[in-house]
Amino acid sequence: MSDFKPKKVVLAYSGGLDTSIILKWLETEYGAEVVTFTADLGQGEELEPAREKALRMGIKPENIFIDDLREEFVRDFVFPMFRANALYEGQYLLGTSIARPLIAKRQIEIARMVGADAVCHGATGKGNDQVRFELGYYALEPDIRVIAPWREWDFKSREALLDFAEKHQIPIAKDKRGEAPFSVDANLLHSSSEGKVLEDPAVEAPEFVYQRTIAPEDAPDQATVITIGFERGDAVSIDGEALSPATVLARLNDLGRDNGIGRLDLVEGRFVGMKSRGIYETPGGTILLAAHRGIESITLDRGAMHLKDELAVRYAQMIYNGFWFAPEREMLQAAIDKSQEQVSGTVRVKLYKGNATVIGRESPLSLYDQDLVTFEEGVQAYDHRDAAGFIKLNALRLRVLERRNRRTGGA
Amino acid sequence: MSDFKPKKVVLAYSGGLDTSIILKWLETEYGAEVVTFTADLGQGEELEPAREKALRMGIKPENIFIDDLREEFVRDFVFPMFRANALYEGQYLLGTSIARPLIAKRQIEIARMVGADAVCHGATGKGNDQVRFELGYYALEPDIRVIAPWREWDFKSREALLDFAEKHQIPIAKDKRGEAPFSVDANLLHSSSEGKVLEDPAVEAPEFVYQRTIAPEDAPDQATVITIGFERGDAVSIDGEALSPATVLARLNDLGRDNGIGRLDLVEGRFVGMKSRGIYETPGGTILLAAHRGIESITLDRGAMHLKDELAVRYAQMIYNGFWFAPEREMLQAAIDKSQEQVSGTVRVKLYKGNATVIGRESPLSLYDQDLVTFEEGVQAYDHRDAAGFIKLNALRLRVLERRNRRTGGA
Amino acid sequence: MSDFKPKKVVLAYSGGLDTSIILKWLETEYGAEVVTFTADLGQGEELEPAREKALRMGIKPENIFIDDLREEFVRDFVFPMFRANALYEGQYLLGTSIARPLIAKRQIEIARMVGADAVCHGATGKGNDQVRFELGYYALEPDIRVIAPWREWDFKSREALLDFAEKHQIPIAKDKRGEAPFSVDANLLHSSSEGKVLEDPAVEAPEFVYQRTIAPEDAPDQATVITIGFERGDAVSIDGEALSPATVLARLNDLGRDNGIGRLDLVEGRFVGMKSRGIYETPGGTILLAAHRGIESITLDRGAMHLKDELAVRYAQMIYNGFWFAPEREMLQAAIDKSQEQVSGTVRVKLYKGNATVIGRESPLSLYDQDLVTFEEGVQAYDHRDAAGFIKLNALRLRVLERRNRRTGGA
Amino acid sequence: MSDFKPKKVVLAYSGGLDTSIILKWLETEYGAEVVTFTADLGQGEELEPAREKALRMGIKPENIFIDDLREEFVRDFVFPMFRANALYEGQYLLGTSIARPLIAKRQIEIARMVGADAVCHGATGKGNDQVRFELGYYALEPDIRVIAPWREWDFKSREALLDFAEKHQIPIAKDKRGEAPFSVDANLLHSSSEGKVLEDPAVEAPEFVYQRTIAPEDAPDQATVITIGFERGDAVSIDGEALSPATVLARLNDLGRDNGIGRLDLVEGRFVGMKSRGIYETPGGTILLAAHRGIESITLDRGAMHLKDELAVRYAQMIYNGFWFAPEREMLQAAIDKSQEQVSGTVRVKLYKGNATVIGRESPLSLYDQDLVTFEEGVQAYDHRDAAGFIKLNALRLRVLERRNRRTGGA
Repeated sequence: MSDFKPKKVVLAYSGGLDTSIILKWLETEYGAEVVTFTADLGQGEELEPAREKALRMGIKPENIFIDDLREEFVRDFVFPMFRANALYEGQYLLGTSIARPLIAKRQIEIARMVGADAVCHGATGKGNDQVRFELGYYALEPDIRVIAPWREWDFKSREALLDFAEKHQIPIAKDKRGEAPFSVDANLLHSSSEGKVLEDPAVEAPEFVYQRTIAPEDAPDQATVITIGFERGDAVSIDGEALSPATVLARLNDLGRDNGIGRLDLVEGRFVGMKSRGIYETPGGTILLAAHRGIESITLDRGAMHLKDELAVRYAQMIYNGFWFAPEREMLQAAIDKSQEQVSGTVRVKLYKGNATVIGRESPLSLYDQDLVTFEEGVQAYDHRDAAGFIKLNALRLRVLERRNRRTGGA
Repeated sequence: MSDFKPKKVVLAYSGGLDTSIILKWLETEYGAEVVTFTADLGQGEELEPAREKALRMGIKPENIFIDDLREEFVRDFVFPMFRANALYEGQYLLGTSIARPLIAKRQIEIARMVGADAVCHGATGKGNDQVRFELGYYALEPDIRVIAPWREWDFKSREALLDFAEKHQIPIAKDKRGEAPFSVDANLLHSSSEGKVLEDPAVEAPEFVYQRTIAPEDAPDQATVITIGFERGDAVSIDGEALSPATVLARLNDLGRDNGIGRLDLVEGRFVGMKSRGIYETPGGTILLAAHRGIESITLDRGAMHLKDELAVRYAQMIYNGFWFAPEREMLQAAIDKSQEQVSGTVRVKLYKGNATVIGRESPLSLYDQDLVTFEEGVQAYDHRDAAGFIKLNALRLRVLERRNRRTGGA
Repeated sequence: MSDFKPKKVVLAYSGGLDTSIILKWLETEYGAEVVTFTADLGQGEELEPAREKALRMGIKPENIFIDDLREEFVRDFVFPMFRANALYEGQYLLGTSIARPLIAKRQIEIARMVGADAVCHGATGKGNDQVRFELGYYALEPDIRVIAPWREWDFKSREALLDFAEKHQIPIAKDKRGEAPFSVDANLLHSSSEGKVLEDPAVEAPEFVYQRTIAPEDAPDQATVITIGFERGDAVSIDGEALSPATVLARLNDLGRDNGIGRLDLVEGRFVGMKSRGIYETPGGTILLAAHRGIESITLDRGAMHLKDELAVRYAQMIYNGFWFAPEREMLQAAIDKSQEQVSGTVRVKLYKGNATVIGRESPLSLYDQDLVTFEEGVQAYDHRDAAGFIKLNALRLRVLERRNRRTGGA
Repeated sequence: MSDFKPKKVVLAYSGGLDTSIILKWLETEYGAEVVTFTADLGQGEELEPAREKALRMGIKPENIFIDDLREEFVRDFVFPMFRANALYEGQYLLGTSIARPLIAKRQIEIARMVGADAVCHGATGKGNDQVRFELGYYALEPDIRVIAPWREWDFKSREALLDFAEKHQIPIAKDKRGEAPFSVDANLLHSSSEGKVLEDPAVEAPEFVYQRTIAPEDAPDQATVITIGFERGDAVSIDGEALSPATVLARLNDLGRDNGIGRLDLVEGRFVGMKSRGIYETPGGTILLAAHRGIESITLDRGAMHLKDELAVRYAQMIYNGFWFAPEREMLQAAIDKSQEQVSGTVRVKLYKGNATVIGRESPLSLYDQDLVTFEEGVQAYDHRDAAGFIKLNALRLRVLERRNRRTGGA
């Protein structure tokens, strides 16, 4: 820890026990004025209690910021990412990763407004979130000071933390006395759970860990079929009803939850170096990914799609690692957005006990051409004999190679 | 069509109507001696009828080749591909694509044995399979002549074809009189269906198209949990029973079929240029992919996995396009195989109504380290403060960039 | 050749013997009305003789199009490509490849203006240029008919061609009687030579092949130092003098030529499958590449540069193969252009006997920070101890891996 | 700095002032027994003086390790890297980067032999070398302790360091009193210079910085032509004389030096985050890269080469960043080595005043086929009309795309 003493700190404040302890610790450790920032990213909790708690802890009303960022979150972060079909390590829909840059961005905006010289987050020293928050802070405000209490303070145990809380009259809910059996992050895109009961990757996650979806076994025996409308790569309607970004996602979340869709039990490689196991629930996002692939399948050129698929692997890694505001992410976004200009139309998706299956896609912008593909001789000028030349020239280098290898006994 | 007149042709012969017509056409058009080659790739059909048909059509016994290639298929083609987690356009498990190189290879081997100067396949002029077959032929035997009847002959309609068949006493099954409502390819890895009733991608595929899996709706209400053992990236056992490659896959196919797993309705971009719609059923492969990702998640280093994920996109395109025998595919295979040396252990997978979900993974080679990841202070030397330096240096260029942009009003 | 009979054909016409023969052949073979299109791309030849020749061959004045495309060529094709530092097979600056799309584009524009139903080029059936022209035509005007005489006509030998020329009163320059010792393409970016005397790649190219540069040995013994100004990735001035795109390149060509810069003797892999050997002279482009790398080195973020370097390999292949108008090229261009927004400043380059060496770079947008890099303790907050944490976390997965390997005797 | 007190430390010891100070500091600060390790990597300095110095400083003879690693360096590090044509940021031949892993490896081997519990290097806290050393240490010996004095000690200035030296009777050469005008690293592959007089990237590097090459202006007016023989991608002979790896490189260094070849003035992005400017001299390596590209140009398949070119960008970044012992580097190496199996033959290179120009290449394994490429109709079966089909199918998706765009007014 440096000698730096912040005067005014913007704290990402949930209203929960841990960030309340941090709030008090900032005051006692640094004598700093604390500004709380609580965002509605669709995590499904009321925000007003956070305001009341902050007030009760002595924060001045003008130092309490509570923002509904749901539309911005989906429109400017979730949707651009879904244009890429981004999956980390082939499976993870990046639900936590994509929320961090927005929180960092808003925190910095508030720091500028209130003239704060530091920002503070409650992420631990072993996780990815500290990296995502701080890369965001630094990229947007290079000279801001960052306070990461979990890396700095001296509490040796949960008991010591709770003692500190009690000493400072921070109310501790009864069920927080013992240790939580796992920890949770949530927003409009997903919920994640990790730690404790999940730490042995050989052991199946207990059902009580899941909070956002019902089990496929408990989902209706009847499939639900929906139609999702897309414009330029983004979902804009469900069953013909135009919806705002956040509303589309919320609606898909309900549909996904009810049909047991979007559960993932994953061991992943963290940017900070170790492997960790998480349970992710991304009900709406899982449907959205399938549907987006569906609309791309008829409207996106093959060359564009193949390039996108390659770029998406790196793109997902960048987001996972916290490089949302890095120029290389912006370069890839430019390429990806360019590809989505004609990705519009509708997709029918069947939802059934954990499955989100595309069963139809339609678009005035479709590149699918029944006449070209038909077994019948089409009316179009597809000359079967062209294929012979196509193959011959594609084969040429392979033939030359094999002749060489024979000549020399090689390969 | 060139003036070339083949003397002896090895024909990839299924015993069905179409390749029987081709057989006769080769004789009448070219006066060529025909050698038939019929492979068991696990398509689920008896091969002996093909022998009888060939005999009845006048093929000499020594010119009839019938080979059981199932083990070679899975061991040398399917498994190496699954080491890469290859998916074409994000979704297709390449079931047809991966079988073609083996057929081509065996056909060339037979051509050498019998001294044939040409090979012949029954793929159409609009599809990918002609490319895959012929790139295989040319790569292995650069000076072989290739006959692709569908690109060459003059039959203007199905009617004309059937007339030819009748004229040459080729028996036509009653149900072949009318046109098939769709066309099928099958092997141990998958079945594909396309054409006719599937040609409108907006319309849901009728249930009767599916032949290899039951519908998720019809699958048992009880989940089935299995344990798959892996060695060096390949599945070697199920529930503790050691199994050969083909037997593992066959067993997984049964499990997948019974649980409604592995259906895919896809519009894809063909190498020959148009988009087409196919229904794929890959029951065992779908389980295998999930399980392989599962065992990799604990045994494969993050750097290796991320590189693999990037390479896999190209690798899948190469296989789809027919470049199995190309040096660039072999280069990627060398890299992928290198990564699998320690990918051994067991994965538990839950099968339930279309879902194949990894619920546990275990390995003596695991890289997952509970002590490193735990929220508790681990005994290992993970110093939380290291994260501060890690973030600081990762952020450095972003801070310099933003300072520059401010200085100059840029970006 | 199909039965299609074009009524009106736009011919890419150089005025030389070969395209004059094509002109006449189009008339006699098809009875088509021929529209000639001759472009000034900086190839260094007068265009008016082409007009006169066309007139003399009976082309109507309104059917003769002669366009100075030099500025468009450099501004919209050469410069965007140089933003990527594109090199094909590590070495070739794509001088021929980048000109073809523009010719195709203009030819199609003229076809629309005059209501032509076909376009025609003089590229041979073994080269890349036919591909580049025709992919351009088809991408811009999907239903245009393309005539490629070298793939279609029956002339069996050069003699037969000349006979046809004589029969149709096409004047044959004396030195064209015999065969040219090599063939040439030229534009403002480069000259290429190939064929005949160059066909053995073991034999050094004779000095008389080079036409655009003097030999390094013949260049001045004194170095020339110039300063090139860049804005947003494009060269905009030399030694402080603002210049148009074509003028910058022309000036650099002069400087390069005089200093023996930009010669390349290369064996490359053609898109149509065989390897070929070419001599390329790209005097100005070689200087431009070095200078562009120079200005990027101080103004472009590391993450952006590394991504660009990876993308550039594919980008170069796309241009070489003729996919300028393909969406995947446009996607990459969007990413590359995004990266160039702050690539402005000046670079000093020393030209000396074949070498173009960057010796200084300067920019108000520089990301180079003397204070950060100095061996002295800088005033800036670079804490050496941050490096320890940075290394520790980067090493973590490698340590876990090696511990695993020891435990299990693996790897 | 942790509380760890090493008992026995293996120090990478050059015998110079700085590492002598470190040696003494390790003794006084930690009371550790010091083991010195001095490697001959071809840096061109005598090693025996290092032994004497170590002895004079009181190191026990059995604790002094002096190893000639030149052959291992070139054979197992430099040559594998050159198989990839690796260039960092398009230009840097990685001369320093590639030496670090070998030093780290040998240092760890010695630590095991002598039972040391720590290793120590003299790299500073702002550079890449600390990362390269330490990633090497940790990858090979995960529980080794690493001491990096420049990040740990409290000397505030060069003066303080020299005082420490004097106090401990470490002899200080007169010219070391003042500050060196730049700092140097050297090995058989290259010399690098950075710092002080080079810190302003706008200012040309003074001639006295160059130590390894003469200026192009001072090189002979007569070109030197040499023939380099390759086997499986590695240089094995010069002008027909078989040479060991280190001898080949040494010979090429002499030739390069005498012809002013291999100078590079570069601003590069360091892994630790800032940009720095270096002067690199890689005389032999520059020739080797050109020659290797030359032999590949006739013996390496196009598909393999293009894939290699893409992989090489990442591969170079891995080496630069110090990930030589990471599994992803080994994966790429496997792919690259696979490609080199037939890269054998000879290349003629002309050396002249800074230029290394390939003028001829020859190989019994050549893929170049004069008959295929000739303008004459070759005897081989290259049918010009195949090109028509090849183009048609490559164009198909672009035509479908443009038709769509017109239909809808899109793109």
